[in-house]
Amino acid sequence: MNQILSTDSMPPPRLGPEGDLRRIRSNPDFWYPVAWSRELKPGKTIGVRYAGQPIALIRPKEGDVFALEDRCAHRQVPLSKGQVTGQSVQCCYHGWAYGRSGRCIDVPYLGKGKLPNGVRTYPCREQDGLIFVFPGDAAKAETVPLPHLSQVANPAYKTRRFGRHVKCHYSFMHENLMDMNHQFMHMKQMGQMKPRFLGQDSGPGMIEARYTFARTGGKQPIGEALVFGQKRDNSAKYAHRDVMTIRTEYPYQTLKIQSEGEDPVMDLWIAYVPQDAEELTNRVFGLLSIKRPKIPGLLDAAWPFLVAFTERIFREDREIVELEQAAWNELGGDHNQEVFPVIQNLRALLARCGIPAGAES
Amino acid sequence: MNQILSTDSMPPPRLGPEGDLRRIRSNPDFWYPVAWSRELKPGKTIGVRYAGQPIALIRPKEGDVFALEDRCAHRQVPLSKGQVTGQSVQCCYHGWAYGRSGRCIDVPYLGKGKLPNGVRTYPCREQDGLIFVFPGDAAKAETVPLPHLSQVANPAYKTRRFGRHVKCHYSFMHENLMDMNHQFMHMKQMGQMKPRFLGQDSGPGMIEARYTFARTGGKQPIGEALVFGQKRDNSAKYAHRDVMTIRTEYPYQTLKIQSEGEDPVMDLWIAYVPQDAEELTNRVFGLLSIKRPKIPGLLDAAWPFLVAFTERIFREDREIVELEQAAWNELGGDHNQEVFPVIQNLRALLARCGIPAGAES
Amino acid sequence: MNQILSTDSMPPPRLGPEGDLRRIRSNPDFWYPVAWSRELKPGKTIGVRYAGQPIALIRPKEGDVFALEDRCAHRQVPLSKGQVTGQSVQCCYHGWAYGRSGRCIDVPYLGKGKLPNGVRTYPCREQDGLIFVFPGDAAKAETVPLPHLSQVANPAYKTRRFGRHVKCHYSFMHENLMDMNHQFMHMKQMGQMKPRFLGQDSGPGMIEARYTFARTGGKQPIGEALVFGQKRDNSAKYAHRDVMTIRTEYPYQTLKIQSEGEDPVMDLWIAYVPQDAEELTNRVFGLLSIKRPKIPGLLDAAWPFLVAFTERIFREDREIVELEQAAWNELGGDHNQEVFPVIQNLRALLARCGIPAGAES
Repeated sequence: MNQILSTDSMPPPRLGPEGDLRRIRSNPDFWYPVAWSRELKPGKTIGVRYAGQPIALIRPKEGDVFALEDRCAHRQVPLSKGQVTGQSVQCCYHGWAYGRSGRCIDVPYLGKGKLPNGVRTYPCREQDGLIFVFPGDAAKAETVPLPHLSQVANPAYKTRRFGRHVKCHYSFMHENLMDMNHQFMHMKQMGQMKPRFLGQDSGPGMIEARYTFARTGGKQPIGEALVFGQKRDNSAKYAHRDVMTIRTEYPYQTLKIQSEGEDPVMDLWIAYVPQDAEELTNRVFGLLSIKRPKIPGLLDAAWPFLVAFTERIFREDREIVELEQAAWNELGGDHNQEVFPVIQNLRALLARCGIPAGAES
Repeated sequence: MNQILSTDSMPPPRLGPEGDLRRIRSNPDFWYPVAWSRELKPGKTIGVRYAGQPIALIRPKEGDVFALEDRCAHRQVPLSKGQVTGQSVQCCYHGWAYGRSGRCIDVPYLGKGKLPNGVRTYPCREQDGLIFVFPGDAAKAETVPLPHLSQVANPAYKTRRFGRHVKCHYSFMHENLMDMNHQFMHMKQMGQMKPRFLGQDSGPGMIEARYTFARTGGKQPIGEALVFGQKRDNSAKYAHRDVMTIRTEYPYQTLKIQSEGEDPVMDLWIAYVPQDAEELTNRVFGLLSIKRPKIPGLLDAAWPFLVAFTERIFREDREIVELEQAAWNELGGDHNQEVFPVIQNLRALLARCGIPAGAES
Repeated sequence: MNQILSTDSMPPPRLGPEGDLRRIRSNPDFWYPVAWSRELKPGKTIGVRYAGQPIALIRPKEGDVFALEDRCAHRQVPLSKGQVTGQSVQCCYHGWAYGRSGRCIDVPYLGKGKLPNGVRTYPCREQDGLIFVFPGDAAKAETVPLPHLSQVANPAYKTRRFGRHVKCHYSFMHENLMDMNHQFMHMKQMGQMKPRFLGQDSGPGMIEARYTFARTGGKQPIGEALVFGQKRDNSAKYAHRDVMTIRTEYPYQTLKIQSEGEDPVMDLWIAYVPQDAEELTNRVFGLLSIKRPKIPGLLDAAWPFLVAFTERIFREDREIVELEQAAWNELGGDHNQEVFPVIQNLRALLARCGIPAGAES
């Protein structure tokens, strides 16, 4: 009989007591980006999502953005379809109005003494072109810091903002980026680059993997050349000089490429924000910073190539993680057979920092 | 902590023992419109729906329309794909034939003595361009009257027939029309019109709300001018002269605009017919009658403007009730916080006249 | 009261202990076609399905096609997205490689001593332009013969290969073809052809029905004339001369038209391969062989007409069986009222040869 142990008879996932990693919900007690600043004009409101919760972001003509539950207390239609007046938003349907605190401050056809309950408000911050909310326990928002967005504010770097909706659990995104053996998949874009794993590090809520790469075939693509600022020699003395460090610092992720003692040539900050209640889709917010080379204007001129290059890479990654999610859906659970220790540790970290499904308060 | 009571922790709906209004099924012991007469040519058949029941309407070349269950007794394919011959319809697949009573009158390859059971028949009537069926207990059809279709047959009025499929429970439609505070939503189309609630009336199976309107800003739109037959003065002496009366006379709804002692300038009859078995979609059949002004031909000339105007209004209404339904789906139930007494009474009426889900015989 | 027994109150299906025919799963201990040979080029791989099982077909540049479970053992993404190298396929994501036996033979970043389990392999054969797999107990594959594909290899015939995905349980396909009373449905294409049932035969795993046809109206269509090789006279002496024999030889079906003592003028072999796990969709693989007339080149010249004719017939059949499936979905089960004995026997055969849902090992 020519059958080998199939996935159908595979043992359950190795997470131990944590259960199926794809059923672990993101921990809401962090600041999550939910929109780019440029998406929300003064005097306007837009609707966004975190883990199935609809959130209205409101930017008054004067003053900071604020965030309310995106369901009118009256009939649950989106407040983000409404009108911004001063420091309040008025529901488009019957005109109920809410202030920054979520309190209902006017029902046009009702006495002021009878005003009904309002809606939930979310702590909200804006920084470096991103709007963040704190979907968890609002009392903790003051003590949990906003993430540091790498080189975004550093004039020595040029930053690309990118992102898409991806139809998978956020954990697939973390694993994809940290396991550089998936370089195999990008061979057409990158040529044959053999990763060498240098080691890992971990701390509370953090894990980091380090790699070098040697080109074993193919030409260096122009997009990659731009990242490194120069066309590298393929000879042995240059191989393994640049170190790539990928770090999950829950719930964010970063990837840096740098030579010892030098500033990173590339510095990526990225977050995967669950969209639906089951957290099987996510919206990506990525900030890709490239160190400006010495020749002024060179990076700007070459920017369209870099954009196209990174888009192609990102499309391949998106396709594969969505296929992983589709397999999970079909099999009704996680059948991964993970053999790479740093990814095993990453999975344990994500399970430990998240919330098991059904355990939400 | 800056959180206010959210919908997640809201109390359940206030219907009391009736439960969730959106789970109340329509009462089948009424005449429901299911098609426009013009949709069904002589010698043809079409398929329609009431609350998940597929119904074949058959119009013989001579004689009245009749209505059968739209599933052949043999293999359950739609009879409405078949051929009309005399006073019968023949299934398109193997040619089984059914008469007006639903009885199977021929199977081409079977002896007449062995004919199988037939299909259900529905009482069916046609009036003023609408085809009605009685989906409930057929024994009651004789005693339950067809609805009176307002001014449709009155030559002093011109009537527009309109309708669409709308993805919401029929109760959202009744509430939308009766709560004229939603005038706020149509501000772009109508200008600022402030409704004043004059009072309500009720009876068995009936509830009625009366309003006047004062224009508080913006210009009178041409569509509205047509309805009122003349451009009204905005001064105080004209304000609050026209009365709008909205009535749910289960399961239909009407809206009239008239001045005391005069005929209505506008008279709308409308029905919302559940399509799927869970009754979370409906098909609208609306008859909008406008009184002809004294100048002959004026209304006909202006008709395209009125059509466009009412289409825009209806589109806004459709979008908002579909958003209400979407919120109900996401929340898994009704979280409405209704504060307007006439709407509270309307909800109680709809619950009382309908059938709780699961209670069907 | 003008109501007749409706399908809602119909008795359950007549299959007796077998239960609902549409819940009977196909028996996997047979050879099923899963792709046309021309779909799979040398050095390539494609993904196909049998009853919810994803299967990668791999054709090395040299050697026979082989078939593996289409999920990498690592992260369950499709191997059919990978690369064929020699006699193995390498997963596109992290480069895990599998040989013909399904064994994992390389993980580029892991020592050879630590190789993980591989994936399931399926017995696989290729014959006359079709690729078959044996999805059941592989130990039985040697003793279960491949089906005989009628006249495909016979130079006296020209064969059309056709097929589509059809959204219904495979049993509807068998019943459709065997019940020639459905000729009624093809009246527009074929003219009025009255079938006469001659008799049936059965054996283990087999049932056969025989018919003749008399033209009772309309002209013989050109497509049909081609099948019969000549334009037949409509007079009585020709009527009922050709015999049509339809046979289900589980799980395949054939249809032959021939006169006594002559070779068939038409010989169809057809299989319906379940695609999804619930087997409510199938992919058709049909081989339609037409005997070449004596005039050389005539059939080739007329071929486009025959293709168009059979496409129209097949489209009508597809539409009706999909409507049958839709009715079954809505009613939540089989309400067929089958009156034709040979079809009753066919249903019993399909139930007996298949596997009741839930009974899979």
